[in-house]
Amino acid sequence: MLSRRTDLAVEAADLGKAGAAAPEGVRLREETREGCPVTRVKVLPGRGEAALGKPAGTYVTVDLSGLARREEGAFPRSCRAVAAELRGLLGDLPPRAPVLVVGLGNRAITPDAIGPGAADHTLVTRHLIQQIPEHFGAFRPVAALAAGVLGTTGVESGELAQAVAGKVEPGCIIAVDALAARSVERICATVQLTDTGIVPGSGVGNHRFALDRKHLGVTVVALGVPTVVDGATLALDILEEAGRDDLDPAALRGVGGDLMVTPRDIDQRVKDMSKVIGFAIDLALHPQLSVEDVELFLS
Amino acid sequence: MLSRRTDLAVEAADLGKAGAAAPEGVRLREETREGCPVTRVKVLPGRGEAALGKPAGTYVTVDLSGLARREEGAFPRSCRAVAAELRGLLGDLPPRAPVLVVGLGNRAITPDAIGPGAADHTLVTRHLIQQIPEHFGAFRPVAALAAGVLGTTGVESGELAQAVAGKVEPGCIIAVDALAARSVERICATVQLTDTGIVPGSGVGNHRFALDRKHLGVTVVALGVPTVVDGATLALDILEEAGRDDLDPAALRGVGGDLMVTPRDIDQRVKDMSKVIGFAIDLALHPQLSVEDVELFLS
Amino acid sequence: MLSRRTDLAVEAADLGKAGAAAPEGVRLREETREGCPVTRVKVLPGRGEAALGKPAGTYVTVDLSGLARREEGAFPRSCRAVAAELRGLLGDLPPRAPVLVVGLGNRAITPDAIGPGAADHTLVTRHLIQQIPEHFGAFRPVAALAAGVLGTTGVESGELAQAVAGKVEPGCIIAVDALAARSVERICATVQLTDTGIVPGSGVGNHRFALDRKHLGVTVVALGVPTVVDGATLALDILEEAGRDDLDPAALRGVGGDLMVTPRDIDQRVKDMSKVIGFAIDLALHPQLSVEDVELFLS
Amino acid sequence: MLSRRTDLAVEAADLGKAGAAAPEGVRLREETREGCPVTRVKVLPGRGEAALGKPAGTYVTVDLSGLARREEGAFPRSCRAVAAELRGLLGDLPPRAPVLVVGLGNRAITPDAIGPGAADHTLVTRHLIQQIPEHFGAFRPVAALAAGVLGTTGVESGELAQAVAGKVEPGCIIAVDALAARSVERICATVQLTDTGIVPGSGVGNHRFALDRKHLGVTVVALGVPTVVDGATLALDILEEAGRDDLDPAALRGVGGDLMVTPRDIDQRVKDMSKVIGFAIDLALHPQLSVEDVELFLS
Repeated sequence: MLSRRTDLAVEAADLGKAGAAAPEGVRLREETREGCPVTRVKVLPGRGEAALGKPAGTYVTVDLSGLARREEGAFPRSCRAVAAELRGLLGDLPPRAPVLVVGLGNRAITPDAIGPGAADHTLVTRHLIQQIPEHFGAFRPVAALAAGVLGTTGVESGELAQAVAGKVEPGCIIAVDALAARSVERICATVQLTDTGIVPGSGVGNHRFALDRKHLGVTVVALGVPTVVDGATLALDILEEAGRDDLDPAALRGVGGDLMVTPRDIDQRVKDMSKVIGFAIDLALHPQLSVEDVELFLS
Repeated sequence: MLSRRTDLAVEAADLGKAGAAAPEGVRLREETREGCPVTRVKVLPGRGEAALGKPAGTYVTVDLSGLARREEGAFPRSCRAVAAELRGLLGDLPPRAPVLVVGLGNRAITPDAIGPGAADHTLVTRHLIQQIPEHFGAFRPVAALAAGVLGTTGVESGELAQAVAGKVEPGCIIAVDALAARSVERICATVQLTDTGIVPGSGVGNHRFALDRKHLGVTVVALGVPTVVDGATLALDILEEAGRDDLDPAALRGVGGDLMVTPRDIDQRVKDMSKVIGFAIDLALHPQLSVEDVELFLS
Repeated sequence: MLSRRTDLAVEAADLGKAGAAAPEGVRLREETREGCPVTRVKVLPGRGEAALGKPAGTYVTVDLSGLARREEGAFPRSCRAVAAELRGLLGDLPPRAPVLVVGLGNRAITPDAIGPGAADHTLVTRHLIQQIPEHFGAFRPVAALAAGVLGTTGVESGELAQAVAGKVEPGCIIAVDALAARSVERICATVQLTDTGIVPGSGVGNHRFALDRKHLGVTVVALGVPTVVDGATLALDILEEAGRDDLDPAALRGVGGDLMVTPRDIDQRVKDMSKVIGFAIDLALHPQLSVEDVELFLS
Repeated sequence: MLSRRTDLAVEAADLGKAGAAAPEGVRLREETREGCPVTRVKVLPGRGEAALGKPAGTYVTVDLSGLARREEGAFPRSCRAVAAELRGLLGDLPPRAPVLVVGLGNRAITPDAIGPGAADHTLVTRHLIQQIPEHFGAFRPVAALAAGVLGTTGVESGELAQAVAGKVEPGCIIAVDALAARSVERICATVQLTDTGIVPGSGVGNHRFALDRKHLGVTVVALGVPTVVDGATLALDILEEAGRDDLDPAALRGVGGDLMVTPRDIDQRVKDMSKVIGFAIDLALHPQLSVEDVELFLS
């Protein structure tokens, strides 16, 4: 029988009845940053993990729907809001500690292209610090890797990240990936940040080797953007609202197939969100830069 | 209230009860060509048009699902089957009459890229007949146009086709576009050919100027490949099968948005189908060529 | 025997001895605009045409080498300088007269991609004036066409432009193309504007149908960016400077082939110059807009 | 003063007078394979290295000019010829020993895109052997890496290859890169294979960390395709033939710049050669496959 799927902790916390309190072992807090609604979900070890089916840690969701509504100033505000949350999760990472940014996913598949797109907007400095010390001597060393896909490399993204981390010796790894959401409204309108890394089987693609502290030896902060709703999840939600949660959508018209639901303008929205994520990483890692500075560096 | 949408005549004929006879004024016939199931829908003027909401004419659907199942020899068989049906619709077009191929849709949006992709696989000969008469003197003059999108040209695809047709003076126009289907199984697994041209508002994009005999002065044969199912259509079908066709999906969880449902491997499937359509056009317009010949010409 | 080739009037005027006066029938004037050196060559009918081998008219060269040197503010200054010169050549074109922008050349060949790249940066408004009159009612109608290449359409770029002009009924056509220069220093560092249109056989590609007033019925202002030096031209110049202008480079080591000379970073430079040209067209056609406004419209 | 540059041992051996014998410590042998002329240069330690300025080892040049002349059957013959020479350099590598293919160079710069292009045509099997043992159990494990460029990753290609080799534990590494030739005729018409790896500073790009046995611990077979002639090298050759080898081209018209000379159809030729190299690697590593088999696997 088909089951619901979401990669967002904020949705997992809400999978029971609407309006109910957070499950035991799970804490929610809401606030606003740069005009963007922010929800913090803290999953405690034990009961919290069991309730949400997600590893213990912090999950922050930033609502960037102002971007899709083309609100005035939405782009720089979104970048700064995500950067601030990312900085929070980096904790006490020293200013000169190297960082490795890993863009997960397949550039050739639109809703899986968030990771490679964010890597394209990452300000890479590791090589410049030695090459042009007069300009970049004070920068944090940042390396980036668009990890490609298993089918074109024969190497798991996690293995690749592990290998490169052995060279870069980062103080922290930032991994970016596409996610699946339950709610259509969250597609390309939300980013989830977490200090738990990325668990296998997430998102659009199929990365089975976890990118987390256990495998990589340093904190892995994951930034994920939901780009699809799973077809079966949507069907189950429709049936539930229709009062027919006894039905299996796999028995219905073609819904059992390997389907995804996206907005019609998914191409533009993935492009926009990749840029926000990349810029937010740049601002978080190089606090001396403004959005305008990053634009100039990357042009 | 949301309503169902399909661009396929074979599905429109079936929108009433399953197993029922074809509506009055509509004739169906089924057969097999090159191993591919073929359904011919003949829509008669008047009652047939009213029953299906589509202009009178012939609509042929070729089932190419063997291609997605990677059956042995599926590619050349699919090309030949579509070519044969296309030749049927071209009727008594003289062998040397010029033809204009118009690829509709937006190359940058995956499920809308069937038309430009097919144009890329079209063997263009119009200029070669004069330039290299020793090799191409006996070929039919073929011109091709990827009509782009209104937002990047400021000119409707239909206007553009009309303008170029004024230069090329074709005996027939072949237009290729992406369509919306009702059934998930038909996505990138079916091609519809029709001699009625393309009516406004079809498919993924939004082309408002009809490409038909009335506007362009010659027969317009349209080849369409369904690449999406409309989100609301899928929801209505699920609700109907759940016995709740009294509900409007717009009232349900996010379904009212401008959503499309596609398979996860839509990128590869659009690429494959574009090639089949392009090759089928080449075989139909140059009957002296084999699939292997076309491969060599286009490499 | 191989001969020298340049598409720049300013170089053709100088093909004789350096330091010599301008040929009879040719007038040169130099000035500076927005910090960019500007040279105006006026070719008079008869003697001027014979001396330069170019049709009578005005040829303006704007030196944008500050852009490659990454001078502060070079991008907006370059856009404004070219826009001002373009406005001069558009003469008394009424503010609401429609304009058709034609990007010539082949997007898939780096040094031939200036035209399609500039078309990508053109603010297309023709369809918006009716669709969103509240925002665009006061704009000039602008349509754009990336004319593709003969081999992929079977239709000459000039024919295509003529066909589309029949629909758009522009008061003026602006054509953008890549050119060949004699001097390596001018590659992607100069733009030539002329009111004579584009003569066949120019640039990297091979467009044989002239885009000029005679063929298109309205003034054609051409903007050309040199992106290559012809291999034989470079060889002849080297031999001349070596005092061996009696030698034919075709007899030398492989120089007779169909070669082009480009800078190593041609990809980035073509991208940069396409943007300058596109923005300059936008500023010239919509004088109410600033560089920042155009950035926002096109993002 | 500018000096000549070539990455081809066969040209370096010939840098003295034409028609002269090979330098001491260098052995040349010529033969034909699949209709393609093959030249083997053996550079002996000591004198040979000094004479050619290249590390001791075997350098095999396969002339694939039949491909550009579009000779009948040139593509499969070229693939098989290069595969056979590659197999020779792999020596006694066991049939099931893993291999890592590294595509060097920058995909975004046409003449530097040979390596990434060849990686795209590499049949990657490492992950399939476990995933689908019933089909791939008997295949050699092959992994591939398009190493990207320093500027977008912050990690040297050589470091990256070293890191991934630590995971894949290959019995041999195959590195593919673009080269610079002295002779225009050899551009995209020749492939050089060598068992010495790739020395820093080769080709179009600028990879400073050597990919060789010393750094990577296993034999590195390098396949290189010349895609450019250095501007200064061409000028020096012209001056020499003109009897003016006393002149420095840096003093001449713009030749001192960072120029490259390529054929006009470089885009198509790089595409063709990338496919030949990729297919040759596939045939060499999986001797049970034919060219047709590889076509099917990669479609």
